[in-house]
Formats: sequence, structure tokens, C-alpha cells
Amino acid sequence: MILHGFWRSSASWRVRIALGLKGLDWSDRTYRLRAGEQRSDAYLALNPQGLVPALEVDGAVLTQSLAICEYLDELYPDPPLLPSDPLERAWVRGFAQAIACDIHPIQNLKILRMLGQRGLDEDAVQGWAREVIESGLEACSRLIVDRDGPYCFGDQVTLADIVLIPQLGNARRFGARIDFPRIAEVEAACNALPAFAAATPARQPDAE
Amino acid sequence: MILHGFWRSSASWRVRIALGLKGLDWSDRTYRLRAGEQRSDAYLALNPQGLVPALEVDGAVLTQSLAICEYLDELYPDPPLLPSDPLERAWVRGFAQAIACDIHPIQNLKILRMLGQRGLDEDAVQGWAREVIESGLEACSRLIVDRDGPYCFGDQVTLADIVLIPQLGNARRFGARIDFPRIAEVEAACNALPAFAAATPARQPDAE
Repeated sequence: MILHGFWRSSASWRVRIALGLKGLDWSDRTYRLRAGEQRSDAYLALNPQGLVPALEVDGAVLTQSLAICEYLDELYPDPPLLPSDPLERAWVRGFAQAIACDIHPIQNLKILRMLGQRGLDEDAVQGWAREVIESGLEACSRLIVDRDGPYCFGDQVTLADIVLIPQLGNARRFGARIDFPRIAEVEAACNALPAFAAATPARQPDAE
Repeated sequence: MILHGFWRSSASWRVRIALGLKGLDWSDRTYRLRAGEQRSDAYLALNPQGLVPALEVDGAVLTQSLAICEYLDELYPDPPLLPSDPLERAWVRGFAQAIACDIHPIQNLKILRMLGQRGLDEDAVQGWAREVIESGLEACSRLIVDRDGPYCFGDQVTLADIVLIPQLGNARRFGARIDFPRIAEVEAACNALPAFAAATPARQPDAE
């Protein structure tokens, strides 16, 4: 498998965690997003969205990090990334999507650049990212506040944790407030796991 | 089941299609989003994100439209909303997420309001929505251009179609270009199905 990604991309980071949890081997192909390498003709032929990550598996190309994680979970079910009960699965997926749909895309590089093109200065752009992340994580913390830990949904890592941890990385990068006790508990538990530790941006080959 | 939604919300629209395809009955509870009813304490207790839709099932609350659709598909597998092959499932989910993560949230009411608060005038805000929708749908059309129709992924309706059709509604509302032949083929095929016809915004009880 070839993971087309970028060290600091939180969507790539999610896939790295999932690959690690499943104990899979992969090779990296990295793109300097700020230089626009993800919009080259060669990459657009792989992923017309011009976004990382993409996962190549035996010549087939998969895009969208959550779809990739679910694919890995279906092919390599141990350890599972989703609970077995349909209602619990829906809660885990809903939490993951609350970040993957309603926080991350609204603070990613592409959107922040569009804001700059509309005349927002750097402070305003950073403030936009902080507002989106803080209000989003506050809602996410409420989704799991009454649940037992140490992970988002109990004593097993799920897709929810895989999406939360990279978003906390983004939160710190933009100086967003992340003092939610339940989220801190999840982060501490995840950080103790080798798959999460190995997937952090600083440990990637293209880290700056 | 109670669907908490709004006639014009494309995420609510997705869930209505899925409920209809499965032949399920539900009751509607509607929120006037422009009046902020989705941010009432009562609704935030149901969904801390303050977004529609939410689906109440026997007192449990599910959020995020794609998670709700997958829940319905797991509980009521006929007709299936995803192919049986893991790679095909990943492609369908990836396409759905290309819209649900990278188009819709960036042009929804909440974000357009944030842009207005940052000083963009109405023309600029509408232009933002058009740009996001046009570039997003162009990428989506490339994801399915080489696939047999009439639906996004062959001769069976999938989650991809459920997400695409409401996004085309948004596209028209903002005057975005949608002249992609493959997408037009999908739309014509879906519009011929009763579940899609019944789910359109104009046919909802709260339509203005």
C-alpha cells in the first residue's frame, strides 16, 4: 500500500493511525501542500479532489480518510475500529463526522487561503480557524462527556479517537482552547499507544 | 422515528431519501434555521452541534447524516445503500464524503454567516458558495465519469446518489454551474424514483 500524504495533514494522520493500529506496512509518498504539489496533473489523476490522503492498494486508489479507515477495518477487522452494536457504531461515526465534516474542512489550508484571497489578514484567518475549532471541539466534548473512558467511546479505540487526536494537533497549531477534561483523558490514553505515537506529524519522513 | 430537520437543509434531505428508500415511516420536527431555532437549549440537548438533522430512535439520538444513513442501512439492509465489495464500498463512501466533508459544510448557512461577519458582502458570499460547489462537483464528476450509470456507481442507488442529489439542489440555489453530463444522468435517474421525489425540499411540511 502507498499512502499519498503530508506530515501535517490531519486527514493523512488519521489514516496513519488506522494503518498502525491494524499492524499494516505501507510506503509513503509525500506532497508539499504549500507548494501546491497536490494539484499537479499526476496527483489529480489519482485524486481529482487534489487533496491528501489517497491510499493506493494494488493499483486501486481510495480517497477520503474516513472511507479509507472503514475500508481497512473491513479488510483487516482486528482490532475493530467500530463497535459491533449498530447504535454505538452510529455514535462513533457521528462523532468522527462532527470533526471530519464540520471542523477540519473549514480550517484546512485550502479554506484559509480562500479567506486570504477575500482580503482577510493573517490574524483574521487564524481567528477564523480558532473559532471553528473551539466551537467544534466544545460540541464534541459534550457528545462524549457522559461516556466512560478512557477513549471516546469506552475502553476500545475507535474511529472517533482516530479523528479526534489529529484535530487536537490542529487546535494547538492555531492556539485554540482545548481544556476539555474528557478530551484530555482521551488524548492521554491514545498517546500511550504505539500506533498513535508513530503517526504524529513530527515523526514523519517529510516533517519540517 | 423522529427526524429533526429543515426542509432546505441538504443534510436533512439526505436522510429523508434514505428513510424513503428503506420504506420507513417517520415524523418530522422542523426548525427554522435562519431564526436560530437549532441553537435553542432544547435542541442543543439533543445535538450539541446545533445542526440538523438528528434522528430520534426509541429515545436515542443520532446525529450526522452519513452516520444516520449507515445506521439505517445496517438495521434495514434492503435495499442496500452500499455495494457488498469493500473496494466499491470505499469508493461510494469516498464520493459521499467528498461532498459531505468538502463541499456542503463550506457553503452551509453557518459558514456563509461567518463570512458576512468578516465583512464580505452578499455578492462575495454567494460567489464563495458558487466557487466551492463548482470546483467540488467538477472533482466529483471526475470520480464517476468512467463508471457505468445510470446512478453514480452502477445500476443500484447508493449513498453516493443520496448525497449528490441534495448538493445539486444547493448548486441551483446559488446559481453554480452543474453542466456535467455524468451528473445529469445520475440526477435524471434518481428523480424518477419515488423516494427521491418525496424527499425534495418543496414537498416538506415546513417548505416556504
